Amino acid sequence: MLDTILNHRTIRKYKNTPIEDHKLQEVLNAATRASTTGNMQVYSVIVTKNKAKKEALWASHFKQNMVLEAPVVLTFCADFNRFNKWCADRKADAGYDNFLSFYTASIDALLAAQNAALEAENQGLGICYLGTTTYMAEKIIDILELPKGVVPVTTVVVGYPDENPPLTDRLPLYAVVHYETYKEFSSDEINKLYSEKESLESSKQFVAENNKQSLAQVFTDIRYKKADNVHFSKEFLRIIEKQGFMKNEM
Amino acid sequence: MLDTILNHRTIRKYKNTPIEDHKLQEVLNAATRASTTGNMQVYSVIVTKNKAKKEALWASHFKQNMVLEAPVVLTFCADFNRFNKWCADRKADAGYDNFLSFYTASIDALLAAQNAALEAENQGLGICYLGTTTYMAEKIIDILELPKGVVPVTTVVVGYPDENPPLTDRLPLYAVVHYETYKEFSSDEINKLYSEKESLESSKQFVAENNKQSLAQVFTDIRYKKADNVHFSKEFLRIIEKQGFMKNEM
Repeated sequence: MLDTILNHRTIRKYKNTPIEDHKLQEVLNAATRASTTGNMQVYSVIVTKNKAKKEALWASHFKQNMVLEAPVVLTFCADFNRFNKWCADRKADAGYDNFLSFYTASIDALLAAQNAALEAENQGLGICYLGTTTYMAEKIIDILELPKGVVPVTTVVVGYPDENPPLTDRLPLYAVVHYETYKEFSSDEINKLYSEKESLESSKQFVAENNKQSLAQVFTDIRYKKADNVHFSKEFLRIIEKQGFMKNEM
Repeated sequence: MLDTILNHRTIRKYKNTPIEDHKLQEVLNAATRASTTGNMQVYSVIVTKNKAKKEALWASHFKQNMVLEAPVVLTFCADFNRFNKWCADRKADAGYDNFLSFYTASIDALLAAQNAALEAENQGLGICYLGTTTYMAEKIIDILELPKGVVPVTTVVVGYPDENPPLTDRLPLYAVVHYETYKEFSSDEINKLYSEKESLESSKQFVAENNKQSLAQVFTDIRYKKADNVHFSKEFLRIIEKQGFMKNEM
C-alpha cells in the first residue's frame, strides 16, 4: 500500500513553522489532478493564512484549536460559479442551479480534498479534516466571501505536526465491504465488528468521562446529537438553496 | 508530488485479466485508512465481480462499456445502517435519519473512494469514476440490495488498462485556488482561464461533431443538460428520503 495512505494520522497539534510555498503549491496541484465530473472541475479551494481570517474561521469551526495553530486552512467548495460564467459568456444555457449539480460539485471538491490531504502528508505535513464546515457553512461563506454557486463542503487544516499519534483503530474490513449484495449484520455480528473498538482504553475512558453506559451513547448523546443534526440539516439545506442550488423544477 | 497522484488518468478500456485478490484487498484496505467523521466509518463498499450483476449495473450506468469490461466494480455508499444497528443494540438513541447525516456519510464514502482509486493505480491498475451513480441510485439500490440507511454515491471501476491515454488538461491552478477571499472572475479572466481547454483539438472536435458554437454548449446542450439535471435532482432527493435520510424535524 502507498506509505502515505497507510501512515495517515489526523494531526490536532501543530508547530507554528510556516509551510514552504513550493510545498503548498504541490498540495494544491495534487488537488487538481483528482478526477472530476466530465473534467468540469466544479470546485474551488480557498487558502487561508491571514491571522484575522483564521480567527474568524476558528470561531465558526467550534473553536477547534488546530484552526489557529495550523499555518494553512484549506476550505474546499462545491463551485459552479466559474463554470456558469464561462457558459453565460458563450451563449450556453447552464442548468446547474439544482441539487444534482450541487452534489456533483461536492464530489469534485471531496476527491480534490483527499488528493490534497495525501500530498500534504507526502510532503511531511500533517492534516485534519473539519466536519464543522457543513454545520457552519453560512458563517464560512461570509468570512471567505463566497458568491452564488459556491458552497463550502469540507476543510483541511495543514501544518507541521507537533504530535505523533498512533494509527487510529478501524473496523475489520468485512464490516465495510460487501460482495455482490449488501448483507445486513445480525446483533451478534455487530457485537463482533465493534468489540475491538469498544474494548480500547480510549473508548472506555470516553464512556466513563461522559457518564454513559456505552460508547454508542457517547456518539448519540454527546458528539453527534439528533437535535444538532436536525438543526444543521435545515441550515445546510437552506444554505444550498441560498447559494443557488435548489431549482429542482424546469 | 506522489507519482500516483501525478500520473492519474481515467481508463475507459480494460483487459479482461482478473485482479489478483491480494491487490484488491490492498485497494479495499487503503479505502479504510481515509479520514472519516468522528471515526464512525459511515460508508460501505460493494464489490461486484459477478457477470450478471455487472450487466445489471452496466444497464444502470447508461451502458458505459467499462462497467462490463473492467473485472471489478466498486460502489461506494453513504451508510448509517450498520452504525444505527450498533446504537440500537446499546440503548443509544441514534439521530442519523436526516440530510446532514446523509451528507456526512457521503463525505466518508468519497474520501474512501479516492484512497481506493489511488491505491488501485499504485498497484498498476486503472480506474474510472462513474457519475451516473447518483442519477440511477434507485436501480443500483435494487441490484445491490441496499437496505435503509444506505445510498450509493459514486462508483469506481477497476482493472488492468488496455489503453494509455495522455494526462487530461486542467484549468490553470489560479482558476481553482483563491487566497483569503473568493475573487469572482471577469469575462476577460474567464477567457484566459478556458483558452487552453477551448483550443485543444479534442475540444474543437467535440464542438464540430455536435454542431455547436462553443465547447460550453456541448456541456449545456448535450452532456449535462438542464432537463436531465432537474429530473435527476428530484429523483436523487426522493431516494435520499426513501433510504431514510430526510427527517429534518425533531
